[in-house]
Amino acid sequence: MATETHFQIELAELNENLLKMAAIVEEAIRYSVQSLVKRDSDLAQKTFELEERINKMEITIDEMCLKLLALRQPMAADLRFITSAMRIITDLERMGDQAVNISERAISINQEPQIKPYIDIPRMAEIAQSMVKDVLDAFVNRDPKLARSVCARDDVVDGLNDQVVRELLTYMVSDPKTITRSVHLMIVARCLERIADHATNIAEDVIFMVDALVIKHHADEKKEEGV
Amino acid sequence: MATETHFQIELAELNENLLKMAAIVEEAIRYSVQSLVKRDSDLAQKTFELEERINKMEITIDEMCLKLLALRQPMAADLRFITSAMRIITDLERMGDQAVNISERAISINQEPQIKPYIDIPRMAEIAQSMVKDVLDAFVNRDPKLARSVCARDDVVDGLNDQVVRELLTYMVSDPKTITRSVHLMIVARCLERIADHATNIAEDVIFMVDALVIKHHADEKKEEGV
Repeated sequence: MATETHFQIELAELNENLLKMAAIVEEAIRYSVQSLVKRDSDLAQKTFELEERINKMEITIDEMCLKLLALRQPMAADLRFITSAMRIITDLERMGDQAVNISERAISINQEPQIKPYIDIPRMAEIAQSMVKDVLDAFVNRDPKLARSVCARDDVVDGLNDQVVRELLTYMVSDPKTITRSVHLMIVARCLERIADHATNIAEDVIFMVDALVIKHHADEKKEEGV
Repeated sequence: MATETHFQIELAELNENLLKMAAIVEEAIRYSVQSLVKRDSDLAQKTFELEERINKMEITIDEMCLKLLALRQPMAADLRFITSAMRIITDLERMGDQAVNISERAISINQEPQIKPYIDIPRMAEIAQSMVKDVLDAFVNRDPKLARSVCARDDVVDGLNDQVVRELLTYMVSDPKTITRSVHLMIVARCLERIADHATNIAEDVIFMVDALVIKHHADEKKEEGV
């Protein structure tokens, strides 16, 4: 077995940091939705703390990538891997922002009576979390099949978002007192949908990187639809 | 005067392409909002065509950057410039997606009577367009002062978004028949707010690149607020 080069060790370290950052993002999403479902605004506070860690990790990993580019001057596949990593941390950081948005809404929503039991929103959150985990696994293991399964889950999340919006519209129409809370809940669903979009962006990067296929802009995979 | 190196010529070409891509994004935003304001769904169609051009430009510029990294192996400031360019085109492409979202909403909204004259939304669009233009100028000219003025405009757009949401909530409460249209309009305003956020992301990159200052995660510059 060949001895690992210094470059390989650095790449392994990069992978490890990416997986760690993704795990913190997953945790932030979990706390944000739990703060809503359990009506516990203290849990929202945890999201804010996690977001700070996410932001710091983005900077650390970005610097790590720049250093690798400057000192190792990688070619072809390694070059594409590192520049993709730099894009991925931006997506992860923005997912953290979305978790914070959810927590802020949860704090507002929790101050008023609950309109309805939350069923679709926790389901959306669960799928979004699985997408974050799997897409980073797909990236570090260069697994386009797993990445494609992440893209497929995006459609499920979009469908759930549409369902949430339709249901909330009926509440709003039948009882205008619920309008403000309903709008907050629509935004929560939309934040989860956006997290899923970010995971899908990463998945497309993985597929592009591995297959060198541009599936990104196929018209039938339109992002950010729904309401 | 020193003769330009081949690398400098390539960087100039990269700048030119970035400015061109930004100009198309501006145009897409303009058409999307005009399709709403003029109630002309044909203009929405133009946005869809422009988005395809934006997507193609993203791929072209991305490949150009990878080639520069691989063949010229730039150091320090040039390295940071090129990796920032790769991030910026992602933001520009997502602004194009938002313009498409706006056009899709416009097509739906235009099928029903207009709730109210549109004042704040065209104003938001105008500011967002100026942000896209100026932030790319700030990037290619490495002008952090101009970049900071873009960040300042983001607050104006957020304020207008809050105003739009508040106004639409009063329409929804007083006349439930307006709820669906109002939600569509809220989404349009939110898309514009997101375009401004993307421009702000780029502005932060420019400031970071030039000043090597991390202003990105200061708590008082929280992104994506407002309903």
